[in-house]
Amino acid sequence: MALARTATENLGFARVDHHRNNRQGFPEVIFGQGKTPDQVARIAEAIVSRGHSLLVTRTDSDAFREVSKRVPDAVFHEHAGIIERRVDVPSGAGVLLVTAAGTSDIPVAEEAAISAEVMGNDVDRLYDVGVAGLHRLLAELPRVQRARVIVVVAGMEGALASVVGGLVRVPVIAVPTSVGYGASFGGVAALLAMLNSCATGVSVVNIDNGFGAAAAASAINHL
Amino acid sequence: MALARTATENLGFARVDHHRNNRQGFPEVIFGQGKTPDQVARIAEAIVSRGHSLLVTRTDSDAFREVSKRVPDAVFHEHAGIIERRVDVPSGAGVLLVTAAGTSDIPVAEEAAISAEVMGNDVDRLYDVGVAGLHRLLAELPRVQRARVIVVVAGMEGALASVVGGLVRVPVIAVPTSVGYGASFGGVAALLAMLNSCATGVSVVNIDNGFGAAAAASAINHL
Amino acid sequence: MALARTATENLGFARVDHHRNNRQGFPEVIFGQGKTPDQVARIAEAIVSRGHSLLVTRTDSDAFREVSKRVPDAVFHEHAGIIERRVDVPSGAGVLLVTAAGTSDIPVAEEAAISAEVMGNDVDRLYDVGVAGLHRLLAELPRVQRARVIVVVAGMEGALASVVGGLVRVPVIAVPTSVGYGASFGGVAALLAMLNSCATGVSVVNIDNGFGAAAAASAINHL
Amino acid sequence: MALARTATENLGFARVDHHRNNRQGFPEVIFGQGKTPDQVARIAEAIVSRGHSLLVTRTDSDAFREVSKRVPDAVFHEHAGIIERRVDVPSGAGVLLVTAAGTSDIPVAEEAAISAEVMGNDVDRLYDVGVAGLHRLLAELPRVQRARVIVVVAGMEGALASVVGGLVRVPVIAVPTSVGYGASFGGVAALLAMLNSCATGVSVVNIDNGFGAAAAASAINHL
Amino acid sequence: MALARTATENLGFARVDHHRNNRQGFPEVIFGQGKTPDQVARIAEAIVSRGHSLLVTRTDSDAFREVSKRVPDAVFHEHAGIIERRVDVPSGAGVLLVTAAGTSDIPVAEEAAISAEVMGNDVDRLYDVGVAGLHRLLAELPRVQRARVIVVVAGMEGALASVVGGLVRVPVIAVPTSVGYGASFGGVAALLAMLNSCATGVSVVNIDNGFGAAAAASAINHL
Amino acid sequence: MALARTATENLGFARVDHHRNNRQGFPEVIFGQGKTPDQVARIAEAIVSRGHSLLVTRTDSDAFREVSKRVPDAVFHEHAGIIERRVDVPSGAGVLLVTAAGTSDIPVAEEAAISAEVMGNDVDRLYDVGVAGLHRLLAELPRVQRARVIVVVAGMEGALASVVGGLVRVPVIAVPTSVGYGASFGGVAALLAMLNSCATGVSVVNIDNGFGAAAAASAINHL
Amino acid sequence: MALARTATENLGFARVDHHRNNRQGFPEVIFGQGKTPDQVARIAEAIVSRGHSLLVTRTDSDAFREVSKRVPDAVFHEHAGIIERRVDVPSGAGVLLVTAAGTSDIPVAEEAAISAEVMGNDVDRLYDVGVAGLHRLLAELPRVQRARVIVVVAGMEGALASVVGGLVRVPVIAVPTSVGYGASFGGVAALLAMLNSCATGVSVVNIDNGFGAAAAASAINHL
Amino acid sequence: MALARTATENLGFARVDHHRNNRQGFPEVIFGQGKTPDQVARIAEAIVSRGHSLLVTRTDSDAFREVSKRVPDAVFHEHAGIIERRVDVPSGAGVLLVTAAGTSDIPVAEEAAISAEVMGNDVDRLYDVGVAGLHRLLAELPRVQRARVIVVVAGMEGALASVVGGLVRVPVIAVPTSVGYGASFGGVAALLAMLNSCATGVSVVNIDNGFGAAAAASAINHL
Repeated sequence: MALARTATENLGFARVDHHRNNRQGFPEVIFGQGKTPDQVARIAEAIVSRGHSLLVTRTDSDAFREVSKRVPDAVFHEHAGIIERRVDVPSGAGVLLVTAAGTSDIPVAEEAAISAEVMGNDVDRLYDVGVAGLHRLLAELPRVQRARVIVVVAGMEGALASVVGGLVRVPVIAVPTSVGYGASFGGVAALLAMLNSCATGVSVVNIDNGFGAAAAASAINHL
Repeated sequence: MALARTATENLGFARVDHHRNNRQGFPEVIFGQGKTPDQVARIAEAIVSRGHSLLVTRTDSDAFREVSKRVPDAVFHEHAGIIERRVDVPSGAGVLLVTAAGTSDIPVAEEAAISAEVMGNDVDRLYDVGVAGLHRLLAELPRVQRARVIVVVAGMEGALASVVGGLVRVPVIAVPTSVGYGASFGGVAALLAMLNSCATGVSVVNIDNGFGAAAAASAINHL
Repeated sequence: MALARTATENLGFARVDHHRNNRQGFPEVIFGQGKTPDQVARIAEAIVSRGHSLLVTRTDSDAFREVSKRVPDAVFHEHAGIIERRVDVPSGAGVLLVTAAGTSDIPVAEEAAISAEVMGNDVDRLYDVGVAGLHRLLAELPRVQRARVIVVVAGMEGALASVVGGLVRVPVIAVPTSVGYGASFGGVAALLAMLNSCATGVSVVNIDNGFGAAAAASAINHL
Repeated sequence: MALARTATENLGFARVDHHRNNRQGFPEVIFGQGKTPDQVARIAEAIVSRGHSLLVTRTDSDAFREVSKRVPDAVFHEHAGIIERRVDVPSGAGVLLVTAAGTSDIPVAEEAAISAEVMGNDVDRLYDVGVAGLHRLLAELPRVQRARVIVVVAGMEGALASVVGGLVRVPVIAVPTSVGYGASFGGVAALLAMLNSCATGVSVVNIDNGFGAAAAASAINHL
Repeated sequence: MALARTATENLGFARVDHHRNNRQGFPEVIFGQGKTPDQVARIAEAIVSRGHSLLVTRTDSDAFREVSKRVPDAVFHEHAGIIERRVDVPSGAGVLLVTAAGTSDIPVAEEAAISAEVMGNDVDRLYDVGVAGLHRLLAELPRVQRARVIVVVAGMEGALASVVGGLVRVPVIAVPTSVGYGASFGGVAALLAMLNSCATGVSVVNIDNGFGAAAAASAINHL
Repeated sequence: MALARTATENLGFARVDHHRNNRQGFPEVIFGQGKTPDQVARIAEAIVSRGHSLLVTRTDSDAFREVSKRVPDAVFHEHAGIIERRVDVPSGAGVLLVTAAGTSDIPVAEEAAISAEVMGNDVDRLYDVGVAGLHRLLAELPRVQRARVIVVVAGMEGALASVVGGLVRVPVIAVPTSVGYGASFGGVAALLAMLNSCATGVSVVNIDNGFGAAAAASAINHL
Repeated sequence: MALARTATENLGFARVDHHRNNRQGFPEVIFGQGKTPDQVARIAEAIVSRGHSLLVTRTDSDAFREVSKRVPDAVFHEHAGIIERRVDVPSGAGVLLVTAAGTSDIPVAEEAAISAEVMGNDVDRLYDVGVAGLHRLLAELPRVQRARVIVVVAGMEGALASVVGGLVRVPVIAVPTSVGYGASFGGVAALLAMLNSCATGVSVVNIDNGFGAAAAASAINHL
Repeated sequence: MALARTATENLGFARVDHHRNNRQGFPEVIFGQGKTPDQVARIAEAIVSRGHSLLVTRTDSDAFREVSKRVPDAVFHEHAGIIERRVDVPSGAGVLLVTAAGTSDIPVAEEAAISAEVMGNDVDRLYDVGVAGLHRLLAELPRVQRARVIVVVAGMEGALASVVGGLVRVPVIAVPTSVGYGASFGGVAALLAMLNSCATGVSVVNIDNGFGAAAAASAINHL
């Protein structure tokens, strides 16, 4: 069986998978939520020590303080909840477009956009183009149609994914956000809308999972 | 207290509200589901005997057979599940537009359209204009923009309500349908999308409730 | 295609839709939730600079502080979570009645009432008339029956919408509120009750969406 | 410990609790759903052989055929899904009123009414008095106010429980029904409305559980 | 129509229903949640000024501070979230037993017990008798069996209601509590268990609604 | 890596895992639902040809007809939905008790009991001992307390698991059933109750999963 | 604005979008569910008359009978619910792998596989490789790792998507199926598992949406 | 009836069950959530005074401060939310393995591991072996296969339970955790995945219920 296992480094509370870069095309990404700042920092150090790119998602300034001690040139994007440090990676084949329906969706969109950049993609951002003012999107049609893969970020009714999906032939990764209140149920309304999209070529990731969309889009863009 | 009560006719299993025409602008409507054909027919007869318009919703051919015995000139719309018999009613002020996103939504759209006609409205129908092929809707923009009130019928992701709502200044009544499968959850996806619409002027009725949308739209059109 | 697009002002994080006043009868409204105070203030300034009415919903005192710097005569309604600045707008055709079932529903009712006033409606308020003490509502029947359009705000079992809907022939916009606990599920109980109303002419907006109800009612009142 | 156990008769697939009459004031009731006709008939025979009243709920004509062979004078109420055979039982202290909001709720209301009669109560029936036509209920106020305990049966938005609960000081048992469609979710809308009733003195049983309401009301009426 | 309406006192934000004592056997109860301390205090004063008993539920020390200024001899039960001031009321016919499954359920049980006392009932408390240690309940069987009406308070799996319901012939009011975590879903697990109780004579109120159970039980105890 | 793979037989539509007997102590079990009768029969033949015990769950008479052609001495238990053919297997260490709350739960209980027998366990059956008649269970306490592992099968409120769990020190596997209606939501009420059991030593399997409980209990009994 | 609209053919009940081939790389696909056989056949004829490939999903033999009259060489795949007729389309760049966890998932997997073939992809099928017998998947690792894009079809706990996603660097489209019972809730369990996958590069489509996965995967494979 | 009851000590707010050690093999465990620090401390003192092991779960430093005053040598495990004090108990028969999918699941895993140790088990810990990097688990296969009973702790998609369940013949107790966000719904995704596991021998406890899994596993290990 071809499963490599020698490249796993056991920190006790975590087994860092140094082989992932070979197997999956990008090093292990640290999911910050639920980890102590010290745990984040120690995993970060282990990754960087191998010369890999660092990407921590769903993290905060407490973790950044600890990470900085071990990885001094790490960068913190507070709005997106990301700590990162980029090394040269092969660039994706085309433009990866990140669209966001509203201003309130920008944090999740930025999680996607920054993650995609760290993963070696040329990212274009197109924000506040929700369907209730359709002309805003249609005015930017050329940017939409030149992308090689598109990430659509939208909360509330999540309709942007269907509209964009109907306009292009490239794959669309839809990210529902928890923006909304009442019957948005923390993003469920947008999630269901996107899963039921009548546009073809649309697939969906978890609510607020900007990183996941970026990873899927980047995998596509690096084919 | 001004509540009239003398106009109620007690059939035992039902109290027919003959005063409703005065109080609410349209006679009592028979909700067919869960009633026996005989019950439907006897209520229908009581309504017609007062010279009122007859409208039975969520009904079927069994009930129609019974109704025909007592109201010979009643008409059955099988696709829409409606039995009706129209008398002259004052016409609404403008055009009541019924739009449907897909072919599969037409039965609910027809429940709305026929109900609205029986209630005295000039109805325009615009079907199969879902957002995944936006040009189909945009090509009909003049018909959309001349309506006085709009009923939007859509299943799956229900995005049509937001797109239409963003194009007009008149009130939009959105009807989610149970068209779809899996995570449409019998229309819940469309319902939630419509409740979370970022377009203004949109309000929502129950899943598959074409009649309810027609009633609300007709009340608006008769102001 | 008649979609205007020249009137969009791109602030980077937001595309302000100055054309909306023409297309939809009221300028763009700022949804405050999820936006930074600075973002709210800059959009507010852009709207006011065109001479339009300002309406910010779901906002707070932090945002008001920033808005005040750019729009000195803006007014803050803390209880309703609204910042506004009114300019002359054409008045609606009749009285827009806002009813609330209980004292705890008043914040949402005020969001509706103030929004409707800013949109140019003559608003009547009728509060604490829930159905468990029916005489309170029946005693005010004349005020209910003279309205041109009614907004019903209710939490818990949300029954007021059905009772009011059965008393009038004008359109009723129902707003479920998150008032309650346990099996109210943050307003879901009231939402479902309103969607299932056996009264005709009732349509529904999102939980706690006083603004949405006002917008729909105002669109009706300005026909 | 005072728990009697000698009075249990073991049929293999069922342990008939002949002591229940003493312990709970009424003999064991057979829940028909999920039992074979033969199982129903054999339990029925065991109960009748002790001279107890027979009550089978949620049953059908197949079971009735089998029961008739063993209990020839049993009676079948098809609409209510009940098989019964009454023996003299002490009568309750007052009138047990069963109200139903709509014609479609009558089967559940009849399950309640017949069960209550078999349990020795004087039952008054008041049907089709839903809140969308409030005058129908108010016209019958004297019958409502003379009852000692009230069962309210309603589907859709279930608002009748709150309105009745607000009019009386006696206990109200609310029965949500599965009448409705779409967002009624098989009776969940009515169930939640009743659980969130702002009227005092209202308690609730399972969806369509006419029998359960009758049992609770009868226990109250026999105090 | 016999609906009294002269006894309503309009405070602007609330319509105090002074007639409720006559109509429902107990004065208006103040639901504290969502009301400002000042609103609570002013309604409390209006009720006390008529010589009625005062009962405020779901309230806190902030409200108590305001109420004390206007009703100096009001009493605050912090654990139960109740402010009250009792006047002589006719006592119920028998013992009203309040049982609680676990120590963590006591706050809700106390809301029920204190409310019932204020409403004029002789209350017996039996706490920490959950079904996982059945002998604790069975050891107290005599107290259970002498009650005229029983309130059962339980979180988690809510099984106590069924066990108690099977032991007595008097009515049982079940109160699910939000005690638990994970798949208790804030009390939903207990609520569903109680609604599906196979014991007869059990009816249910909202999650954590100790007051509602007390009101239903008191109505029964005062028949 | 020690994962055997040579023992897999590929039928095209299925890969029969002949190694499972070694790895997991019992041969592959055929989940009948969603497979064609022909598919079931061909997998059955492949298993039997290796001399293994055959167990097909969630199956019906159509599949049995096909299986009989290839495995003539297979046995069909219609009530339990099982086709089986036993070969000598090592017997478990003690008695595996299957308890069922009501008569309607017996099909699931039999799925568990027969599966456990085929897996080589000495099975004791104790049916219709639901908690609403506690004396029925307490009268059988010795049988409950001598078991080495207990499967508790219950629908509706599922309380039997907690009561049994509190009486013994051996592991209890709880099986919620879909017996019930309305707010039982197809077994969800019982599932949640069991997951929230306050008794220790209780773990839970899927709704109606008698086989799964038998497999877990058998694994325990064969330690 | 570049939205073509001249290529829409209005059949009254449907607007066939002949331009979609240009805009989206594949002609309009007919969603069979909810359409009458006649409607399906007439849309099919319109599509074929332009020389486009025909693909009807979620359809049945009734529709096939009507389609055959108008498109004699159409082919029906009953198990997959597909009617199709292929014309030469450009082939995708690599192998599109369809994996299915269990035999019962094959119908959905075949919907995906056949759809992908009609869309011009070289499809490899790998069925019955669920994670409870991990060696079955690991034995086929080379086939998994040579694919350019992977569709993972799984019901029940849906774990296959995470395991496959962790083994490859290419994009994975996960399709939850409704295979299962009880707490699978018609595929919700698998859907949630896939949305929460800790593997990167996984995105998800609706429950049972084999076609949607094929469309997304084909869009990727044709980049 | 053999139910002992003399050993219950009534503290007023709690009935301490000193007999549980005999009946269930381990003394009463204190569920800390919802109890005041003083209540926890007084129950702890009562248990320790009988010479029993002390185990408090879901507790915090406030409670520990009070407990320390009465049980000076109690130990607090903050990360696991446990206060404990061990006395000699008979050791289980084999190794009880606790596996955790990710670093963020460790607090729940530690609740299980420490509880199991206090209950007299030899515990092995295997953390961060989630299925997206399968080689991490496979590299530790010998430790997995030598355990007598296994607790699997996993959030997000919860797939580890199925993979482990497929590798062993011993019983597996699965603990879903609330680790995740969005459509993990506080652990529901993992819970459903585990309930639907296609691996045999897996049973499930409540979300985050490390203690419950330990209790079930310990009961198995002490057979």
